[in-house]
Amino acid sequence: MDDFELSCKGIYRALAIREKYMRLAYQRFPCTTSQYLREIEGESFKPEDQVQPLFTSPPKDGEDPFDTKDLPKNLGYVARMKDGVMYVYNDAAAADKHQPKDLPCPDYLTFIDDMNFLIALIAQGPTKTYTHRRLKFLMSKFNVHEMLNDMEELKELKINPHRDFYNCRKVDTHIHAAACMNQKHLLRFIKRSYRVDAERVVHSLKGREVTMKELFESLNLHPYDLTVDSLDVHAGRQTFQRFDKFNAKYNPVGASELRDLYLKTENHISGEYFATIIKEVASDLEDAKYQYAEPRLSIYGSNPIEWTKLSSWFVKHRVFSPNLKWMIQVPRIYDIFRGRDFVPHFGKMLENIFLPVFQATIDPQSNPELSIFLKHVTGFDSVDDESKHSGHMFSSKSPKPEEWDIAKNPSYTYYIYYMYANIAVLNQLRMQRGMNTFMFRPHCGEAGAITHLLAAFMTADNISHGLNLKKSPVLQYLYFLTQIPIAMSPLSNNSLFLEYAKNPLLEFQKKGLVVSLSTDDPMQFHYTKEPLMEEYAIAAQVFKLSTCDMCEIARNSVLQSSLSHEEKLHFLGQAYLKEGPEGNDIRKTNVAQIRMAYRYETLCYELNLIKEGLKTE
Amino acid sequence: MDDFELSCKGIYRALAIREKYMRLAYQRFPCTTSQYLREIEGESFKPEDQVQPLFTSPPKDGEDPFDTKDLPKNLGYVARMKDGVMYVYNDAAAADKHQPKDLPCPDYLTFIDDMNFLIALIAQGPTKTYTHRRLKFLMSKFNVHEMLNDMEELKELKINPHRDFYNCRKVDTHIHAAACMNQKHLLRFIKRSYRVDAERVVHSLKGREVTMKELFESLNLHPYDLTVDSLDVHAGRQTFQRFDKFNAKYNPVGASELRDLYLKTENHISGEYFATIIKEVASDLEDAKYQYAEPRLSIYGSNPIEWTKLSSWFVKHRVFSPNLKWMIQVPRIYDIFRGRDFVPHFGKMLENIFLPVFQATIDPQSNPELSIFLKHVTGFDSVDDESKHSGHMFSSKSPKPEEWDIAKNPSYTYYIYYMYANIAVLNQLRMQRGMNTFMFRPHCGEAGAITHLLAAFMTADNISHGLNLKKSPVLQYLYFLTQIPIAMSPLSNNSLFLEYAKNPLLEFQKKGLVVSLSTDDPMQFHYTKEPLMEEYAIAAQVFKLSTCDMCEIARNSVLQSSLSHEEKLHFLGQAYLKEGPEGNDIRKTNVAQIRMAYRYETLCYELNLIKEGLKTE
Repeated sequence: MDDFELSCKGIYRALAIREKYMRLAYQRFPCTTSQYLREIEGESFKPEDQVQPLFTSPPKDGEDPFDTKDLPKNLGYVARMKDGVMYVYNDAAAADKHQPKDLPCPDYLTFIDDMNFLIALIAQGPTKTYTHRRLKFLMSKFNVHEMLNDMEELKELKINPHRDFYNCRKVDTHIHAAACMNQKHLLRFIKRSYRVDAERVVHSLKGREVTMKELFESLNLHPYDLTVDSLDVHAGRQTFQRFDKFNAKYNPVGASELRDLYLKTENHISGEYFATIIKEVASDLEDAKYQYAEPRLSIYGSNPIEWTKLSSWFVKHRVFSPNLKWMIQVPRIYDIFRGRDFVPHFGKMLENIFLPVFQATIDPQSNPELSIFLKHVTGFDSVDDESKHSGHMFSSKSPKPEEWDIAKNPSYTYYIYYMYANIAVLNQLRMQRGMNTFMFRPHCGEAGAITHLLAAFMTADNISHGLNLKKSPVLQYLYFLTQIPIAMSPLSNNSLFLEYAKNPLLEFQKKGLVVSLSTDDPMQFHYTKEPLMEEYAIAAQVFKLSTCDMCEIARNSVLQSSLSHEEKLHFLGQAYLKEGPEGNDIRKTNVAQIRMAYRYETLCYELNLIKEGLKTE
Repeated sequence: MDDFELSCKGIYRALAIREKYMRLAYQRFPCTTSQYLREIEGESFKPEDQVQPLFTSPPKDGEDPFDTKDLPKNLGYVARMKDGVMYVYNDAAAADKHQPKDLPCPDYLTFIDDMNFLIALIAQGPTKTYTHRRLKFLMSKFNVHEMLNDMEELKELKINPHRDFYNCRKVDTHIHAAACMNQKHLLRFIKRSYRVDAERVVHSLKGREVTMKELFESLNLHPYDLTVDSLDVHAGRQTFQRFDKFNAKYNPVGASELRDLYLKTENHISGEYFATIIKEVASDLEDAKYQYAEPRLSIYGSNPIEWTKLSSWFVKHRVFSPNLKWMIQVPRIYDIFRGRDFVPHFGKMLENIFLPVFQATIDPQSNPELSIFLKHVTGFDSVDDESKHSGHMFSSKSPKPEEWDIAKNPSYTYYIYYMYANIAVLNQLRMQRGMNTFMFRPHCGEAGAITHLLAAFMTADNISHGLNLKKSPVLQYLYFLTQIPIAMSPLSNNSLFLEYAKNPLLEFQKKGLVVSLSTDDPMQFHYTKEPLMEEYAIAAQVFKLSTCDMCEIARNSVLQSSLSHEEKLHFLGQAYLKEGPEGNDIRKTNVAQIRMAYRYETLCYELNLIKEGLKTE
């Protein structure tokens, strides 16, 4: 009985920690879980305390998404970075005296305290046993549910008119813009561009401007002969457990020149081809009508001008589609930049990433293109090979970002904390201005230490991958209780880290974790013209998913996504913010109410257990 | 050493048996294997002894595939069935005296002798051990080949200009016409037909003609509300090991009226909708350009008029596409017809199936539509649930077909022998006339007894499924030595008989059996718009196939198919009939010569072993 209490106490505190971090950053935390927390605390639940992120609505008829005329006025604030976190001041004088405005954010000591508590918790014997048993129970319970109710669920779906898996909205919740087309599409585009533009100057070779023809000649190849084999951008057996080889696959024909020309926003032709390819992908999605995607574009942090360049690419080529929601990915490659002396310390990298966004938030008209672009950005991702071990452990003794001037990379957690802290402050500022906020949605748990999943539990609205939740019952159970969405990409994993049949997607889905399906990199992993459908089809076949399972995953993907409130109302139903069956509109989602009720009751049951465990105190 | 000799002797005789049956029916037997057989026999190999089936070339520009003006003249022969086999006579007098023309075919006693030899062989201890060890060796050998040469293979493909997996020809070698569209396509077609034809009389309900609107009203549904869920034609967890439930899935919304209206050639609207759907599928294939399919249409044998009706549907709706090659499937459902008294005995069923074809072969102008249709038919399939056990064992004591008047179904082998015997005679007659011949390509080894695979080893040019080769090393090795093509459908198996990960496709492919990929029933099994690509993509992902593997499978599919000689020349290269690397044109097939050489040397090595084993005698 002692053990049970101990576990419940620990879990309660873990939940409270996440709730605190989510609220500060305008990220989501389930009402149901909050309600139980309040009951445990003997307080009353106030729905108005729940926060929601804010996303830009799709343009209304005739409205131009690139229109700059209604940009808000300059607040005249000053933004400065201190110890790796942006502060906002009324003016320069206040900044000099460090009298910042009230945009609260847990400082790194608080974060480390909370983190250390969670590190201890996930290693604590009784909690490990308890959560392991609960997860086993959740699995068996779902199997029983399925055996008893799958025909009933199917019946609900059959009598649900006009909606089936094909016309349920689904969002590709994790996809990199530079690999969002499939290999065949890229190949065709290259061939086509050559037919039209062979004589166009497209590249600068050792300072000399060269035409496309000359460029291909210098590579000793002719686009006419090019095939997907020689293009060689597809992952295969060779990339398994070799993230380095996988990264090299981004270079068509192994030539970084072609990557520059076709897959970069910044090059001799101002990223025109890349923009065109993306717009073709978008147009396919628009035609398919029910599919959306959330592509990632990179901001590296090696230079503060990156934002201006990226947003000017975005505006110049009018890279907009109602079916695309943009994300910014920040690669964790400080070590490379420091090695090449691009930045003096880690703090500068953070400043390069965040200062321009703060400035555009304070004075949108100072950088109209960036301000417009930011309207269409919905979140930040943190990316890199998680299996690389940094050797650093984030603690109160860690150097502060401005002091981090060694060439070694900080740890995953260090990156995550500073990303989160800046996003939290930024979101508070933007929310005050009625501007859209950003979610933090890092790659997490694809490989590497389980502390990654712990850091994301504290800071991320939702994550990509999450495979390593397999390894920690405590974290897996916490992800369940807090219903953290996980964008899973089993085909990507299959080529990189984990064979398809061993993917935990089915297990997670059965236990009630909130999983969605995503493609990651269609260029590298997929074969067909509809990569997201390929992902669903393979999961359905290999895991024998029912229609209800597939529609539940599709619904999860819309919920997880950064689609705007208006779109979610339209795609999921008027009550989508409510949890449990009343939040589900089967006419929109094709998810059986029996399933919704099962999920809701199961979550409440588990939360109630914790409440009961704490009552005995 | 005794055991080795014994095994070699048995295997030699088995190969010789297949060679004999193939030659008589103008079906294929590898030159390489024939050559070794001749060497064993101390005879010289004569290439001119090798036979090939004959298929109608695609129409030349401006040529009408339905043109009847060049139909050959009447030979005046008489065809009659005797003991279940068709005989051709010069005239009625010769028929009465049973003085048939010389169209030789192994009689049932010879067949039973050969079969009994093979039954003993596959159970013979030493041969089981020998073949088991050889297969294990083939597997390990391929694994070594792969480890040593996969990068070299890839290199060959990379420098091969303009050809990659996407523009290699691939044939869907096993697909049923009635399920050749995917579920979404059928759904859309039904909705569209209702928008256009609601007031059209399309059905007869208890003798009363009804419009489409009335028909749907009688079923209590409106097409507008229809979804893929309510359509309910997709196999799922419920159909696993339940072929009966699977068969019921052919009825949209569970209503046989809708199956009649949309998926039948014979109904109140003369099969118009079914023809239209098929032509839509064909048009998608034509657009995709590199994909072909071999759909099966049914002849049941309950009535001799079936052929006339089917061919008149084919001609009336001009159901022709260069990308489709037609097959006739004969369901093994004598027991049902006998039970309903549609036929007096099994012999009548055989007569209903074959007599009209013989008559149209002798006097094409007597039934021009059938004659035209037969030009586009390339083979016969035998279909039904193989897991049903008949209880009958084909032996010299079995009743002859005309004596088989009980309601019980004959065994699989009995069906197969009589199908084969009639096709063999028919092909000889047609070859004499310069008409296209028919291949025998039964469903075989999807489930049930391994004797099925034995019967097909004797009689079939190639088979569909072949899963049960897993269970008999002797047969598996014989299928390897004779390079019998196997159309595998792992997604179909996954829904019916065997989970995807357990499918032997990869194992067979590695050992050097000739496998192709096919969809079986896109309506029931597939999710995307390109079912064949879905099949390849999933196999590639789950089995981690290399590009060379995929292109080899695609090449196998063209070889296995009934595409005409002209088409094969075009798709595989001028020397495609040669075996080994010289038969491969990498520019057309994208299969590495290293792979081809490996396959050829490996086959020769195994055949040589048998030759060596027999030398010591």
